[in-house]
Amino acid sequence: MRLVESVLAGDRLALARLLSMIENQEEDGFKALAALYPRTGQAHIIGVTGAPGTGKSTLVNRLVKRLRSFTAAGEKDPSKVGVVAVDPSSPFSGGAILGDRIRMRDLAGDPGVFVRSMASRGALGGLANTTGGVVQALDAAGFDVILIETVGAGQAEVDIARTAHTTVVVTTPGMGDEVQAIKAGILEIADILVVNKADLPGAENAMRGLQVMLEMGRHTNSNLGEQNLDVEPAWRVPVLATVSTEGQGFDTLLDSIIQHRDYLHNSGEWDVRERERQRAALDALIHERLRKRFLESQPYGKFEEVLQKVVARELSPWQAVGELLKEEDAE
Amino acid sequence: MRLVESVLAGDRLALARLLSMIENQEEDGFKALAALYPRTGQAHIIGVTGAPGTGKSTLVNRLVKRLRSFTAAGEKDPSKVGVVAVDPSSPFSGGAILGDRIRMRDLAGDPGVFVRSMASRGALGGLANTTGGVVQALDAAGFDVILIETVGAGQAEVDIARTAHTTVVVTTPGMGDEVQAIKAGILEIADILVVNKADLPGAENAMRGLQVMLEMGRHTNSNLGEQNLDVEPAWRVPVLATVSTEGQGFDTLLDSIIQHRDYLHNSGEWDVRERERQRAALDALIHERLRKRFLESQPYGKFEEVLQKVVARELSPWQAVGELLKEEDAE
Repeated sequence: MRLVESVLAGDRLALARLLSMIENQEEDGFKALAALYPRTGQAHIIGVTGAPGTGKSTLVNRLVKRLRSFTAAGEKDPSKVGVVAVDPSSPFSGGAILGDRIRMRDLAGDPGVFVRSMASRGALGGLANTTGGVVQALDAAGFDVILIETVGAGQAEVDIARTAHTTVVVTTPGMGDEVQAIKAGILEIADILVVNKADLPGAENAMRGLQVMLEMGRHTNSNLGEQNLDVEPAWRVPVLATVSTEGQGFDTLLDSIIQHRDYLHNSGEWDVRERERQRAALDALIHERLRKRFLESQPYGKFEEVLQKVVARELSPWQAVGELLKEEDAE
Repeated sequence: MRLVESVLAGDRLALARLLSMIENQEEDGFKALAALYPRTGQAHIIGVTGAPGTGKSTLVNRLVKRLRSFTAAGEKDPSKVGVVAVDPSSPFSGGAILGDRIRMRDLAGDPGVFVRSMASRGALGGLANTTGGVVQALDAAGFDVILIETVGAGQAEVDIARTAHTTVVVTTPGMGDEVQAIKAGILEIADILVVNKADLPGAENAMRGLQVMLEMGRHTNSNLGEQNLDVEPAWRVPVLATVSTEGQGFDTLLDSIIQHRDYLHNSGEWDVRERERQRAALDALIHERLRKRFLESQPYGKFEEVLQKVVARELSPWQAVGELLKEEDAE
């Protein structure tokens, strides 16, 4: 396929076109992805997540620049960096959000950086699917580090962040007490915790609070499965301070990211996460395919007819599902 | 069924037992729900959502008390109120979160109030399903107002909030500028916007900012479908100020909620939303049923075998799904 070859040859326009095809769920996009698939698996995928207002976008921006100014031992060039920003689209903004356009302009001109903002118009599974596809395309196109920025602290965002090798959770001193961080359900997925806007009052308190929470988690946490309660976990989640607007704290953040990558490789944890990533991706794909097949199996108007009965309380939702699935079986 | 009769008779223990059965996805729970289903459709379902740290729990608490101290014209008693708190469970907390236990104690003793905290252990669809089931059970049990509190501002939370008749979006002056509210993707689902903690500095600015955003949305928003661009929408989203800890602003909030309910009934919008609620519920149920059937169709070990090939890059995820679905078809 011409498109595949162009993407592998580093053609940015071809890559942008492929990403649009994936976002639009075009059949040809998935074919291209399948062809590119054997070339994936090289990139270090880093999720950056946290509640709105924590300054994630600025942090990601700074981190990209820091990554681009650094050449690892044994390497000739800095890492090529892809950024996938998962933003709930808003009818208010008419699609892409101003901030992202500003960001893109800021990073534009560096051929080693590629930024993609995703709209989340579709269903949840759809977003996870297309994000996964976009990451694979960037991976195959030779981007060494791929940052996935997810907005918000909800379950969907947590799930997307979970598909990363390394998850950076961003908080700020102003975000309220640490109970809120727990409620958001994101503390336990952090490989690296960052208190951004650390020049605000309360930063030290916030860091201390997070440290205490992590200590508690280490001793009471029985959900992580692979960790034995009596054994110290091999990776201790660092709590770092950054001031993204000033570029402070990014040497330490970069160090932690590299250390975490090395830890993943040395401990075998990389392969475990890779497998989980693939499992989640397969799962989401199956979900979508089943749904599509189901919808195609339904006679025209049948769903609306059954829905009407449910609304009128003539049929319970459980009976309705039974009736609709009978339809599929009869096919 | 004895359980169904007990729930309809107002037996709280029976209700609690039914909700646990629904949460655990027990077959008997769904049977009971199906039996209760014709009795649903009476409650006014109110979603309360917003980012972590906005004080939603305290606000819901106050709102419940306000609702309980108010008897509508033509009614003998105040509304019975059910609260469903959807919290991502955290391994740190070992399940239910301290704050909810405190809240329950605070509202305990009032037989017209029933509080249920949901853990979000399962999948996304699972959470939406069980939340829907719990709401239906409370509805059938005669609770006139059901508050669904969702933590976070992610897509899943937005989706759950969307199943309400009236959605209250909570922000605070300290949450950063209004662009963040847009990014969180929750502004456009608000029927009522509340700036909580309005005694903090910047409250007036926040309210003005939200007003401006709403004005902009009114003129540029073409996504809402049913609204014509040249026509003023019939419901103007109010921006209210509350101080939950002091109980300030709750008369106005209650007024707005009642006005919105009346608007829904008078405009026919109530039926539209009811239909959308049912559509989403059916959708989620179908999703889950299809998934279950798929998993049961797979020979033991097949999924892991295919996953291994994907991890080894021998098979692309798209080929893998094809192979797994063939298995189901052959059944």
